[in-house]
Amino acid sequence: MSLPDSPGAYDLVVRNARVATAADVFETDIGVRDGRIAALARGLPAGAREIDAAGRWVLPGGVDAHCHLAQKTGDGSVMADDFRSGTRSAACGGTTTVIPFAAQLKGESLAQAVRDYHAVADGQACIDYAFHMIVADATPSVTNEELPALIDQGYTSFKIYMTYDDLKLDDRQILDVLYAARRHGAMTMIHAESSDCIAWLADRMLAEGLDTPPYHALSRPPVAEREATHRAISLAELLDTPILIVHVSGPDAIEQIRWAQTRGLKIYAETCPQYLFLTAADLEGDLLHGARCICSPPPRDEAAQQAVWNGLANGTFQVFSSDHAPFRFDGPGGKKPEGEHTPFNHVPNGIPGLETRLPLLFSEGVLQGRMDINDFVALTSTQPAKLYGLYPRKGTIAIGTDADMVIWDTGITRVIRNGDLHHNVDYTPYEGRTVQAWPAITLSRGQVVYADGVFQGQAGQGRFLRCDRPAPARPRRATRRHAPWLSALSRMDAWTDAGTAGDVGDAA
Amino acid sequence: MSLPDSPGAYDLVVRNARVATAADVFETDIGVRDGRIAALARGLPAGAREIDAAGRWVLPGGVDAHCHLAQKTGDGSVMADDFRSGTRSAACGGTTTVIPFAAQLKGESLAQAVRDYHAVADGQACIDYAFHMIVADATPSVTNEELPALIDQGYTSFKIYMTYDDLKLDDRQILDVLYAARRHGAMTMIHAESSDCIAWLADRMLAEGLDTPPYHALSRPPVAEREATHRAISLAELLDTPILIVHVSGPDAIEQIRWAQTRGLKIYAETCPQYLFLTAADLEGDLLHGARCICSPPPRDEAAQQAVWNGLANGTFQVFSSDHAPFRFDGPGGKKPEGEHTPFNHVPNGIPGLETRLPLLFSEGVLQGRMDINDFVALTSTQPAKLYGLYPRKGTIAIGTDADMVIWDTGITRVIRNGDLHHNVDYTPYEGRTVQAWPAITLSRGQVVYADGVFQGQAGQGRFLRCDRPAPARPRRATRRHAPWLSALSRMDAWTDAGTAGDVGDAA
Amino acid sequence: MSLPDSPGAYDLVVRNARVATAADVFETDIGVRDGRIAALARGLPAGAREIDAAGRWVLPGGVDAHCHLAQKTGDGSVMADDFRSGTRSAACGGTTTVIPFAAQLKGESLAQAVRDYHAVADGQACIDYAFHMIVADATPSVTNEELPALIDQGYTSFKIYMTYDDLKLDDRQILDVLYAARRHGAMTMIHAESSDCIAWLADRMLAEGLDTPPYHALSRPPVAEREATHRAISLAELLDTPILIVHVSGPDAIEQIRWAQTRGLKIYAETCPQYLFLTAADLEGDLLHGARCICSPPPRDEAAQQAVWNGLANGTFQVFSSDHAPFRFDGPGGKKPEGEHTPFNHVPNGIPGLETRLPLLFSEGVLQGRMDINDFVALTSTQPAKLYGLYPRKGTIAIGTDADMVIWDTGITRVIRNGDLHHNVDYTPYEGRTVQAWPAITLSRGQVVYADGVFQGQAGQGRFLRCDRPAPARPRRATRRHAPWLSALSRMDAWTDAGTAGDVGDAA
Amino acid sequence: MSLPDSPGAYDLVVRNARVATAADVFETDIGVRDGRIAALARGLPAGAREIDAAGRWVLPGGVDAHCHLAQKTGDGSVMADDFRSGTRSAACGGTTTVIPFAAQLKGESLAQAVRDYHAVADGQACIDYAFHMIVADATPSVTNEELPALIDQGYTSFKIYMTYDDLKLDDRQILDVLYAARRHGAMTMIHAESSDCIAWLADRMLAEGLDTPPYHALSRPPVAEREATHRAISLAELLDTPILIVHVSGPDAIEQIRWAQTRGLKIYAETCPQYLFLTAADLEGDLLHGARCICSPPPRDEAAQQAVWNGLANGTFQVFSSDHAPFRFDGPGGKKPEGEHTPFNHVPNGIPGLETRLPLLFSEGVLQGRMDINDFVALTSTQPAKLYGLYPRKGTIAIGTDADMVIWDTGITRVIRNGDLHHNVDYTPYEGRTVQAWPAITLSRGQVVYADGVFQGQAGQGRFLRCDRPAPARPRRATRRHAPWLSALSRMDAWTDAGTAGDVGDAA
Repeated sequence: MSLPDSPGAYDLVVRNARVATAADVFETDIGVRDGRIAALARGLPAGAREIDAAGRWVLPGGVDAHCHLAQKTGDGSVMADDFRSGTRSAACGGTTTVIPFAAQLKGESLAQAVRDYHAVADGQACIDYAFHMIVADATPSVTNEELPALIDQGYTSFKIYMTYDDLKLDDRQILDVLYAARRHGAMTMIHAESSDCIAWLADRMLAEGLDTPPYHALSRPPVAEREATHRAISLAELLDTPILIVHVSGPDAIEQIRWAQTRGLKIYAETCPQYLFLTAADLEGDLLHGARCICSPPPRDEAAQQAVWNGLANGTFQVFSSDHAPFRFDGPGGKKPEGEHTPFNHVPNGIPGLETRLPLLFSEGVLQGRMDINDFVALTSTQPAKLYGLYPRKGTIAIGTDADMVIWDTGITRVIRNGDLHHNVDYTPYEGRTVQAWPAITLSRGQVVYADGVFQGQAGQGRFLRCDRPAPARPRRATRRHAPWLSALSRMDAWTDAGTAGDVGDAA
Repeated sequence: MSLPDSPGAYDLVVRNARVATAADVFETDIGVRDGRIAALARGLPAGAREIDAAGRWVLPGGVDAHCHLAQKTGDGSVMADDFRSGTRSAACGGTTTVIPFAAQLKGESLAQAVRDYHAVADGQACIDYAFHMIVADATPSVTNEELPALIDQGYTSFKIYMTYDDLKLDDRQILDVLYAARRHGAMTMIHAESSDCIAWLADRMLAEGLDTPPYHALSRPPVAEREATHRAISLAELLDTPILIVHVSGPDAIEQIRWAQTRGLKIYAETCPQYLFLTAADLEGDLLHGARCICSPPPRDEAAQQAVWNGLANGTFQVFSSDHAPFRFDGPGGKKPEGEHTPFNHVPNGIPGLETRLPLLFSEGVLQGRMDINDFVALTSTQPAKLYGLYPRKGTIAIGTDADMVIWDTGITRVIRNGDLHHNVDYTPYEGRTVQAWPAITLSRGQVVYADGVFQGQAGQGRFLRCDRPAPARPRRATRRHAPWLSALSRMDAWTDAGTAGDVGDAA
Repeated sequence: MSLPDSPGAYDLVVRNARVATAADVFETDIGVRDGRIAALARGLPAGAREIDAAGRWVLPGGVDAHCHLAQKTGDGSVMADDFRSGTRSAACGGTTTVIPFAAQLKGESLAQAVRDYHAVADGQACIDYAFHMIVADATPSVTNEELPALIDQGYTSFKIYMTYDDLKLDDRQILDVLYAARRHGAMTMIHAESSDCIAWLADRMLAEGLDTPPYHALSRPPVAEREATHRAISLAELLDTPILIVHVSGPDAIEQIRWAQTRGLKIYAETCPQYLFLTAADLEGDLLHGARCICSPPPRDEAAQQAVWNGLANGTFQVFSSDHAPFRFDGPGGKKPEGEHTPFNHVPNGIPGLETRLPLLFSEGVLQGRMDINDFVALTSTQPAKLYGLYPRKGTIAIGTDADMVIWDTGITRVIRNGDLHHNVDYTPYEGRTVQAWPAITLSRGQVVYADGVFQGQAGQGRFLRCDRPAPARPRRATRRHAPWLSALSRMDAWTDAGTAGDVGDAA
Repeated sequence: MSLPDSPGAYDLVVRNARVATAADVFETDIGVRDGRIAALARGLPAGAREIDAAGRWVLPGGVDAHCHLAQKTGDGSVMADDFRSGTRSAACGGTTTVIPFAAQLKGESLAQAVRDYHAVADGQACIDYAFHMIVADATPSVTNEELPALIDQGYTSFKIYMTYDDLKLDDRQILDVLYAARRHGAMTMIHAESSDCIAWLADRMLAEGLDTPPYHALSRPPVAEREATHRAISLAELLDTPILIVHVSGPDAIEQIRWAQTRGLKIYAETCPQYLFLTAADLEGDLLHGARCICSPPPRDEAAQQAVWNGLANGTFQVFSSDHAPFRFDGPGGKKPEGEHTPFNHVPNGIPGLETRLPLLFSEGVLQGRMDINDFVALTSTQPAKLYGLYPRKGTIAIGTDADMVIWDTGITRVIRNGDLHHNVDYTPYEGRTVQAWPAITLSRGQVVYADGVFQGQAGQGRFLRCDRPAPARPRRATRRHAPWLSALSRMDAWTDAGTAGDVGDAA
């Protein structure tokens, strides 16, 4: 046995780190061996490689729990970022784990979609990755057979849609999916916008020739998001099972989520940079300029931005993700399938953001005093890792965890320019915005994948991560009372973790 | 320089610890040197002393941020627990830091109260301790001179009362105190019950001869607590400064606190074991039996207990303290100053609980699945340490922190018997209740103070802790908009931390 | 011109009436001529007929705005009460106007359904009646052509369903209906229960053989009603048009309605006797006994009853109706189409209540001090008349209104027995309950239709009432701001009343 | 006995009136005899006097339930309007009943204050008047002896203050007053602003020389009003007795009131023209110009105006009063006791508004579609009459009520000019504003007191009105459960009306 204290016992030592976790701040050297955090102490012996972090924050690498890579789009083309470019961009922005989506198409097998996505991802990623799934066709064979099997195999979270014709589930199908999540211990992510409300408005606008990007926002009003959010909460309450509402845009949906949390329901929520840094005004401009900022739900207004900041500060949100959806502005598969006069409903929904997510939040959140450094780590790394079953392998700096770490430069002034970014999209909605923080070095399992402004990783370096059951899917005594109507039924028991190492709530 | 990895480099190594912090869970050895956590790694070299924690939780030592020791009572007597017996009892229950109160009397100098309390505490404690203050006489010299000086000297939190004739401040005085807290960076704790409401009811009850303990609870209805809670929130909002509402008893006050938090106000809240494990029915019984459970606010009912559990689960509460108030049932200074017919308003308010706080919450909270282990650590140790300026010295297990740790036995069955407790009170309100968790070993700065059911510490071993400014007292960009009326005034700036080591939010 | 003060100028004089309207209480004689209130004064000259009401309340006749008569049921049979027996029963309980439903079947023309219903009603009613419609097939021809024409013809309110397979509309169809209501000035009534939630639960219960009446209630939990209520509110908010939620059963839905009203939305609400006087426990019993009380939403519990009383007291509800749904317990078309083992989902939904509605509410509401006499009149007569366009012809006692009046016996003790009722149903769910009020005399347009415990009306005496646009459908300046997304669209203007006599808000 | 239908039987007949009450609209002639409404019918025989109201609204005369007349001010002077000029101005604006305040000074007998106020009012008023009282010194003799006796004598409502040094009561005194109100059946009006909050801010502002009118508004922020409102609600809940919060200014206080009403508490609320038509910006200007608009609470902003309109529309407010406080801008007893540099805290609080109250609300409320005509009547006449025990003598047009009526001109354009008003104040804050409605004729007990723009009444014509117990002070079954703490006490029964004519809720 090699003693950890022999010189050279560490593959890497990060010196003088000012570490922040989701709860703590401490100064230490960090010893890495075999890609994991092996020792925390001041004055560690020399490592095979040494990095001095003196005066700098060293944080857990970001976990971007909501991003789209190499996903087939409606028109058969594929998104501009594949696992290679997408994970490269992520690494350069301080993210060391991504969880993109293995997307089922209607009529397709979910298991096949997962296999296909592995084929796409295989050997491409330069940082570690897991898969969410997208369940677009909730047939009995999917919910009763495929899903349970896939959950057992480490695909423990899936997203469902309440909007988009080719993806949406009806409420009964959502219940079938939630029932599977409840019984087998998975996390359901929900895109909550009312399909019917939006279609009703959009059809009328289009019929009147109101088809430019600003009408995208007008056709998806806050009330349509709020309604679906309340509905999703209610369906989850009916089955007494946790859900996570993704990309929440403003106060109407936040009010519903907060109301549910206040009542003791296990409702989790995510927001994204576009709801802090863009507004519907960014959809304006000539020649489809505003199509760059078309995403759903749409950015709202400044009051909504304030509400989202407030929700980040008071704990309503658990997760801050990019929802990176890499459509180029120009060119095939891009924002203008029908040229400069593409109507808003034919513009692909989504904006890029993998690389800018963390610098933007660090600058405007931490450095402007809107959140503390622990909250930043929790929102961008620890909580997504826990909610999606990657913790403790990912999401913190602690003994035994993967050595995914970011050493931050702060107090700088950097102007965001798309030309400096590493994704494969031809624009960033944040062009010209100034940030005061950017990663100096990104480490993936102890390997430098980004340093000194240069990507230093390699495709294939990233590994696929099988996910454990998410922590909140475990049964909680207090929640059962919410669903007396379930007690009549047999086979309604929720998934129980019989004492695995991760089962932190029931140690004997 | 002695390498940390030389054999014997550590005074103590705790082996195979399953550590939980407020955010993380990891398995490691823990190396302690000079009373501090010096190394976290598996396979540490042998320490001068070794403890094997295999299969056990090792948690940060409890911080009991609300307890009364050696405090003079209204009738001139002194509470039954002094620093010696109180800290002994605390240690045996897994608490390694206490923050009792240097209590000013009306007409007295606050600084003198602090000096006097030091004289009482000096050389007595067997674990570390800090002081809150009680501001009972908010004269200009106190708020303008004494408080600022004391805050600079490490007394950075103080409790004020909205009830009790000899302690209460009126609203104007509360504003003067909050103004000092705002300008000098302190935390104000508030006992929120309406003095006038309670007096009005109590006087009528007593006039009708309704003077037994149950009338104590009836004379302090939830509406009296709720009113004062809303008032305290409003005064804090007026001055845009954080406060912490202590010992919240049930849903009425919780609703107000949650409402304030939802609006983005920095309102913190504490609850105590008596609001989870007692009800007003415990005030009943013959021969003043129920006087044992007289405290203020009084325990409520089962629905209130559920509401408190819910508030612990959804983040409304930040702190779980004992509010240990050691009055003996029998004997001088006790619950019956006028014998078996002491009217309720002459019964001292308060119940003991230093030693049972953590085992009760671990058993009913963690082991019953009502909260996870991280929340337990946050509520009982990390968050009180942060809110009162003791972090990172106390409140976590991380490099550089004091080696205050508790190794827990869980899965046991232990019946609480006052005869087994180490305080100087002749009863416990939890007599006969069964818990499933109890500390196996308590370490204070690396020294065993409790092990194998036996107190092993020494009076004088505990040190006085000067407190930093509490984290939330630091200015936050987002809060200023709440108080436009302040912008007219000069000299209203809140205290600013110009970049000290603890200033985790603004690292350069 | 015949002077109103000539002896014999009045067909009827009701003497010494203690009149209550929705706002006022006054003592007067009431002169009736040609079926209308012609004079209010004390000491009126003798009428052709005289009734002395000394010491008694004289109230506007009840308007039962939610009852089912002669409606075809799912299995092709017809409900037990036709217009003859139904209006007879209504009159004997103090109701002088009923608004049953002309129910469209899927695939059927709405206009034809109205014509068919006239054929059924023609010459049968003994009190006046209007028609709501049920829109079960919201095709473009229905919403764009039939509805506007029917509204113009005096059918200005319609009910839609969010549940029941043969009736429910999807959200898009609901928006189409609400759009017609907005443009043409009608009132939409909504049965708000989530079809999918209920089906999901019911299917599982039935699959497990849990098919007795109590499972009817369990399969329709409050969360299913709350979700649909929030959704209905949202759809109405999207189109900025008023709706009325019918038969609200308890606190979950009430919370949503109150929340909407607090925000300034025009959301109206109705409740029914079954939510005040029954609970889910009434669905228990042997041999399908509980099927008598199967209705949707189901009765809840005592806490829900309290919440409904509170909602009546604080103005959350505007309407109190019977939702009379006359299914016999025994016999064809009844509660047991498959005999004593009829599963709950094959039991027709609905209970009788036309005759008992007013005595129950008068007794438990007014006489028990839960509401005042004006609120009673408002809830049972004036507000339904206004909301459905029958005011001022119906709904009050004032000059020019129809002389529909009820003289009440109060302070009596009467046990409800089905044998004493005048409907064609073989049970009442209130069998054996005691009331303290019952009509002494019911007058329909000045004709005695009930007196001294005896029905005295005649089939054919009742007239069909064409309805005006409901008052709240008129545009309100304050509401437009709720729907900025509509301002982009042309042809979104709401219906405007250009100054008709009833247009009380815009008098020149 | 003279038949009512003999020609000349009526002293006055108003022909062709389009009457609105708080619930109804009807067209009729109105026969008046002996100052009371004697007959409602079309085609009444000729009266001794005839007025044709064809095409015009005829509404119940306004009840201004909050106005100050001939009241002594802090500096010993008397307000500019006495009963003569005040009631003249009221009559010219459509108000036929005023309820000013018999104001107790500290140390004074309340009964003496009432006697003194009668001496001032005697023979002066040209319309009818009742007295509220102001209880400024809540000694035991006042609350236990004087108040009960005065209530029995027809002084059944009183205002108390939570602010103003010479008027405010502490919470205990408020409870004593509420207890008297509960036991003897009176209505307590509360000026809810936190004295201590305001004093704290004002003192600091003044110390910094910030003493111009805008600082009046800044020193009384919404949070100070909200806190006191919540406190008042809590004190009322403690004693389970109704209160009315006067002059509510905006959303913060409204939220509390609505919350209380939603919970079923009997909390009533009033607002005033200044909160609909002024903002804090009106306090700006040179040479103390803004002092004209100094009142408390101060006007807020446009969002607050919207919130008040919303509260009027959804039933949160029951009463709309003027809070007429007649201080001249120039001259003795006026707004500038210390000349052009009078600091804001020496400017008398209050603005004139008796004459403009109704035209402003009719124009912006009814004619702009923000409320219907029934709500207008309810808010300005019926509900204040009921809440203060003047109903049914005042507050409606019905048989037996006083013939206080206003015939309105609507559809006009009139510019408000102080020179056209009839009060004794040298300005109106609404100078230059245009209204579209103004009384054509005001009738007080059948006498024309205003017509054709000319005051036609006489001092002494108005009578003093003894008030009955207010309707809501009567016990309600549903409310007792709110105060279990009271059930322990004897002598806590609320006042019970044993079946008087006005006891509309318990008719036998």
